[in-house]
Amino acid sequence: MKIAILGGDGFCGWPTALHLSNVGHDVVIVDNLSRRRIDEELGAESLTPIASIEERVATWQELTGKQLRFESIDVAQDYDKLVNFIRDEELDAMVHFAEQRAAPYSMKSPKNKRYTVDNNVNATNNVLTGIVDSGRDVHLVHLGTMGVYGYGTAGMKIPEGYLDIEVTADEDEQGNPTEPHRIPQQILYPTNPGSVYHLTKVLDQNLFAYYAKNDKLRITDLHQGIVWGTNTAETALDERLINRFDYDGDYGTVLNRFLMQAAVGYPLTVHGTGGQTRAFIHIQDTVRCVEIALTNPPAAGDRVMIFNQMTETHRVRDLAELIAKIADAKVELVPNPRNEAAENELHVRNETFLDLGLNPTKLAEGLLLEVTEIARKYADRADHSKIPATSLWTQNQQAGVPASVSAPVA
Amino acid sequence: MKIAILGGDGFCGWPTALHLSNVGHDVVIVDNLSRRRIDEELGAESLTPIASIEERVATWQELTGKQLRFESIDVAQDYDKLVNFIRDEELDAMVHFAEQRAAPYSMKSPKNKRYTVDNNVNATNNVLTGIVDSGRDVHLVHLGTMGVYGYGTAGMKIPEGYLDIEVTADEDEQGNPTEPHRIPQQILYPTNPGSVYHLTKVLDQNLFAYYAKNDKLRITDLHQGIVWGTNTAETALDERLINRFDYDGDYGTVLNRFLMQAAVGYPLTVHGTGGQTRAFIHIQDTVRCVEIALTNPPAAGDRVMIFNQMTETHRVRDLAELIAKIADAKVELVPNPRNEAAENELHVRNETFLDLGLNPTKLAEGLLLEVTEIARKYADRADHSKIPATSLWTQNQQAGVPASVSAPVA
Ligand SMILES: NC(=O)c1ccc[n+]([C@@H]2O[C@H](COP(=O)([O-])OP(=O)(O)OC[C@H]3O[C@@H](n4cnc5c(N)ncnc54)[C@H](O)[C@@H]3O)[C@@H](O)[C@H]2O)c1
Ligand SMILES: NC(=O)c1ccc[n+]([C@@H]2O[C@H](COP(=O)([O-])OP(=O)(O)OC[C@H]3O[C@@H](n4cnc5c(N)ncnc54)[C@H](O)[C@@H]3O)[C@@H](O)[C@H]2O)c1
Repeated sequence: MKIAILGGDGFCGWPTALHLSNVGHDVVIVDNLSRRRIDEELGAESLTPIASIEERVATWQELTGKQLRFESIDVAQDYDKLVNFIRDEELDAMVHFAEQRAAPYSMKSPKNKRYTVDNNVNATNNVLTGIVDSGRDVHLVHLGTMGVYGYGTAGMKIPEGYLDIEVTADEDEQGNPTEPHRIPQQILYPTNPGSVYHLTKVLDQNLFAYYAKNDKLRITDLHQGIVWGTNTAETALDERLINRFDYDGDYGTVLNRFLMQAAVGYPLTVHGTGGQTRAFIHIQDTVRCVEIALTNPPAAGDRVMIFNQMTETHRVRDLAELIAKIADAKVELVPNPRNEAAENELHVRNETFLDLGLNPTKLAEGLLLEVTEIARKYADRADHSKIPATSLWTQNQQAGVPASVSAPVA
Repeated sequence: MKIAILGGDGFCGWPTALHLSNVGHDVVIVDNLSRRRIDEELGAESLTPIASIEERVATWQELTGKQLRFESIDVAQDYDKLVNFIRDEELDAMVHFAEQRAAPYSMKSPKNKRYTVDNNVNATNNVLTGIVDSGRDVHLVHLGTMGVYGYGTAGMKIPEGYLDIEVTADEDEQGNPTEPHRIPQQILYPTNPGSVYHLTKVLDQNLFAYYAKNDKLRITDLHQGIVWGTNTAETALDERLINRFDYDGDYGTVLNRFLMQAAVGYPLTVHGTGGQTRAFIHIQDTVRCVEIALTNPPAAGDRVMIFNQMTETHRVRDLAELIAKIADAKVELVPNPRNEAAENELHVRNETFLDLGLNPTKLAEGLLLEVTEIARKYADRADHSKIPATSLWTQNQQAGVPASVSAPVA
């Protein structure tokens, strides 16, 4: 297959590009390198020393003899370039990672909220309009988030995208009153996004549903949990292929911040009571799931195919305890800068990928490697002041900085 | 109240501004005049001779002594100007009409799809972020559409925004299996937009739900039917205050195109079987509804208040027969350029406005006036070639041009 990886220089996109190239697909990376610019803006940096995209691509060719091209396109803005690219490359599929993906970054300021909405909605709409416009039958695989569901659905496992409901009807087709009777329906699972970033994924969902219906586009939307782990079989081949590891308060997910805090000898800062339950998946499983999704496309005219791309759930405080034990660190509760319920349950269906052969890497097995091979190994590259989460969801929230540490570290 | 009317130079916004000024509010009109530029782009023009915004505003002051200011702001792009405006004017409320509102225009080309999404989503997000950013407690009233519901809900009247559902649960809070039991919930009515324009109103809905939850903004979303009629008590005072009458294939709604066709002696072109049922409201009732919504705001922390703003429903073919009878014209079926079901039922709840005192102007009473005072009176200003609907929803659709007429008129 000829496949474009939009956002292929990013944390998920880069290992996906390598994996798909490795298994024999013809892969082109598209990116505007905005993520690297945001690092500069935040004064932050990947803990791991990532090479430039040019060096990454050249290294891959040197090691494997496989071609991997890089195209600089801003998917949200360079529409004509994007359409010509889809046509000229005769693409069979696109994997769409090209969005601003950090919830805290999206809440940092009015400017950040506006950038996140503008970039993500226009990127997705350009990709969809562009496929229609190109006249090609391109299968689109998009990375969504578990966060669109909203948490706390007591009493049932979160299904894969669509919810069975019943409504009570009390008239016939002509509007004449009848006895109340129940009508079963299946709907897109009602959403309850927790940040402006998550909101953009809700907007994406609606765009997908429309283009699948009106233009019969073939679309798969992967509702992904929090991705952990740094390397995959391919990125581990050479340090010049190493993947990003974000640990700063904006882009570092909860697990990476715990790993970093443990590595530099600070308490693991748990927001609120740590009662939030989150879904997780290892980066190695992410790249496999994308491959499985690509080889199992929906048919033209089908509704959007939605898979839950996660392999386990954990409460944040349990996660902290786990890492504290492995890495010999302390846990400390700090105010939650997010506007969310203190405690929530989360039960998720993920049969589709398991049935299609996914064999998950579990946290309990892989975490130690992250501690020794990544967090401790590169700990001297860390800027401690960047670890605390300081973006506030509303003016009533407080930053997640521990009382016990007077230095700006956490 | 100090009220800004965003999109106050448009078909609904202009009479709303006059009405609110007339009943004693302090009104400022905000517009980027994009609608007038689109007229130029399409080579189309309002059938009625509308004055410039400057002349409109000056005339109102001359006739009534009431001040009405105009501020040129692109709500989707001039964010800083917008925030300063909200702060400096010490606004109490904003009525948000400032969007690209024609379904056919939104489907005309990739460029139009992208403009509609970009303009409408960024306008709405800027307004919301801007209110939060300004620190003011501004009540936002937005004009949405009945079209977000999708048509054809057999068995029940469309509720006002929220749907009562039941889901079947089969576990307890801890995820242990239980006997299946039903759990009632109330959700935003599932959407099924019929065009990219309607899709943007779905995206708006999700933006509103988020900001009402996270930032406790007070938001009313009016799900409006197709607005008919040209003048209100205020716009009828002087020809320099006259409202727009769009009759072209992009912006002219079904009723206006029928009126125009009748006035120039052509058959009324009904798309498909004419079995589509649509909801309608008179422009005079629109301005009253907005006033009622402004005086009945939700409280901070409430979910978005949603009203259905329509007063009657009709099948398109019945509407054609009605106008054909009044205006002595013929009806002709043409291909439907839209991608939609040929026939649909539509039953809608609209108790909220009726309970709050709305006394609707019905089609059967008001139509004759539109025929004599508008369509016939200004018929010589019409460009017949602009009447047919030519935007196609997909490449499989055909333009709505009648077989009986060889000229480009319909
Ligand atoms: N990392 C996670 O834990 C996680 C979890 C769930 C979902 N996702 C989703 O997966 C996708 C990838 O996430 P990631 O962690 O790799 O993020 P990332 O920021 O590391 O990668 C995103 C890439 O997209 C690029 N990009 C952004 N906007 C672009 C545009 N307009 N044009 C071209 N390129 C653009 C960036 O430069 C970056 O290289 C995102 O959509 C994200 O929402 C990630
Ligand atoms: N006319 C109808 O039948 C109808 C039915 C249902 C809902 N609505 C909704 O009511 C609202 C008003 O509709 P209308 O018929 O008056 O449309 P219109 O096009 O006549 O008016 C919209 C006005 O908004 C302005 N505008 C657009 N984008 C702007 C921007 N970025 N910044 C500043 N101004 C901008 C335009 O210049 C125009 O004056 C729309 O949101 C529409 O979706 C209309």
